[in-house]
Amino acid sequence: MSDDSSQMNSYVAKGEAFDRDTNYIEDRILADPDSQWPVEPGRYRLIAARACPWANRTIIVRRLLGLEDVISIGMPGPTHDARSWTFDLDPGGVDPVLGIERLQQAFFARFPDYPRGITVPAMVDIASGAVVTNDFPQITEDFSSQWKQYHRAGAPDLWPEESRDEMEKVMRLIYTEINNGVYRCGFAGSQEAYEAAFDRLFTALDTIEERLSHSRYLMGGSITEADVRLFTTLVRFDPVYFGHFKCNRQTLRDFENLWGYARDLYQTPGFGDTVDFTQIKQHYYIVHVDVNPTQVVPKGPDLSGWLSPHGREKLGGSPFGEGTAPGPVRAGEEVPEEHTAAAWL
Amino acid sequence: MSDDSSQMNSYVAKGEAFDRDTNYIEDRILADPDSQWPVEPGRYRLIAARACPWANRTIIVRRLLGLEDVISIGMPGPTHDARSWTFDLDPGGVDPVLGIERLQQAFFARFPDYPRGITVPAMVDIASGAVVTNDFPQITEDFSSQWKQYHRAGAPDLWPEESRDEMEKVMRLIYTEINNGVYRCGFAGSQEAYEAAFDRLFTALDTIEERLSHSRYLMGGSITEADVRLFTTLVRFDPVYFGHFKCNRQTLRDFENLWGYARDLYQTPGFGDTVDFTQIKQHYYIVHVDVNPTQVVPKGPDLSGWLSPHGREKLGGSPFGEGTAPGPVRAGEEVPEEHTAAAWL
Repeated sequence: MSDDSSQMNSYVAKGEAFDRDTNYIEDRILADPDSQWPVEPGRYRLIAARACPWANRTIIVRRLLGLEDVISIGMPGPTHDARSWTFDLDPGGVDPVLGIERLQQAFFARFPDYPRGITVPAMVDIASGAVVTNDFPQITEDFSSQWKQYHRAGAPDLWPEESRDEMEKVMRLIYTEINNGVYRCGFAGSQEAYEAAFDRLFTALDTIEERLSHSRYLMGGSITEADVRLFTTLVRFDPVYFGHFKCNRQTLRDFENLWGYARDLYQTPGFGDTVDFTQIKQHYYIVHVDVNPTQVVPKGPDLSGWLSPHGREKLGGSPFGEGTAPGPVRAGEEVPEEHTAAAWL
Repeated sequence: MSDDSSQMNSYVAKGEAFDRDTNYIEDRILADPDSQWPVEPGRYRLIAARACPWANRTIIVRRLLGLEDVISIGMPGPTHDARSWTFDLDPGGVDPVLGIERLQQAFFARFPDYPRGITVPAMVDIASGAVVTNDFPQITEDFSSQWKQYHRAGAPDLWPEESRDEMEKVMRLIYTEINNGVYRCGFAGSQEAYEAAFDRLFTALDTIEERLSHSRYLMGGSITEADVRLFTTLVRFDPVYFGHFKCNRQTLRDFENLWGYARDLYQTPGFGDTVDFTQIKQHYYIVHVDVNPTQVVPKGPDLSGWLSPHGREKLGGSPFGEGTAPGPVRAGEEVPEEHTAAAWL
């Protein structure tokens, strides 16, 4: 997701509060072999830009569950024009599997007059080149529930049954108040809308800060989907949202528990190794010309702190519960070291 | 200063590095009674917007030296249009002494076809309504050297003779690399110009950080003009320059010594009591439409830290040397408490 074409030319609607378009292609890829889009190794390609927080979720979950062999991945570059994300980082500017330059082509292959946003993440049926779904919360949920037979040995249970109800509540708060809350600040069309958005955002962060004072992860001692969803916003907070979206009551580093928690996750295999800080900064600062017309990308902030000891082990627990950590990142899918926190050491 | 009309419509020159126009009206007000503009109580009015860092210097020095009775002050509001600073905060939008709505009128009273920037601070001859000088570094130097007979009892020596040569060197570094360096980052017209400006700025801050590790103030144990000149940039750093100008390698609070030093000064009579954080933020975020086209003013950052213990007393010294602190701020010249760090406690 991140951006839809209806907003690509103007993210900020003068005088108005930001309202995210949440209409997606809602087909699902299901374990049931008789379904329209059955789970099938090698059949689908995940298109996910590293820059985008919504796409970043899918990159993390795919890796945590070990789905790399069954779901390939294509990665558009960090910036896009008014019409589409593009495969400008690939040789020849073409996705090597789908053979397209613009993600828009896969949406048009599905619906020739597709009128809505061209968003990532998207799951594409490779044979037809058509988008099956860009419904981001459903994509990661289905990675857990529908692709189970293909999970790696030791894959964590990201949707533990006993926490399900509470998890839904927490994830709703995270989505409306935090994931989307930062955009509501940045794309506010008036001072009043911005200030209301600012208060909502920090009220929610204060709530989560308190929750994390006695719990290593959001749902207890092990990571869940809720942590994935919060992490992708937190990791962008100081590099982008604080300055670019004016989410600046305080930095993430000023929250004792959230900062420890975010570092804990960053240092956990499957999280930090999916984060490309350079692409993240380029995306926001270059694409949103009505927020940053100069398109200059900040050189800061210093990211070395992400690798400092987080001290969260004292709360107990174990990130993967009864499972194990994923192995090394697949060859060809590594984030260049100069785009990581390690570059600041 | 802050902004001159030649740049008022476009601060950012695409593809270019920022270059400050430094041509001012360079007349001086001198102690010599036979000079064109002799020192004379009540004859001149200082026009100084609280928002502007260059004008802020004059407000501080006037108060440190106790010149309030002999030089009155007029304060334009934080924002201005393409032509001029205006007296929009005064009753009827008119400066009560000069009787003008726009500072431009005082420049035109001096030179009817004045072609350069309408800048603050400016010293205006009240009888003729004409600007005598807007040469900001000379104005504060002359407050010290030319108005000596009108200094309050206990006024500090801000230009100690024995430090003069070293002080000039330090102040040159502060001006070119820090005071102006933040603007060079914010108004850079290309990524390359910005990155070069960023490196220059933080190299200089690192130099000063080291200097302040063993010295309570820049020139030793007591405040000088050099401290005034550095303070006005530091106090704007986290609220404005970090986000708005992308001076974001780290916050001021991440510099141990600079942050202690800045708080020490903020808590010293004559410094923090001249600082209006609300006007400061409004100025930059509303005036620079080609940096912040939404004109939304950030609600943060939390400023309560400015009032926390700074621990700099351990380095010895005494802020006013053999002098004393100024008394309370004059009635009518107080910064509203809701615009100060105290509002965040």
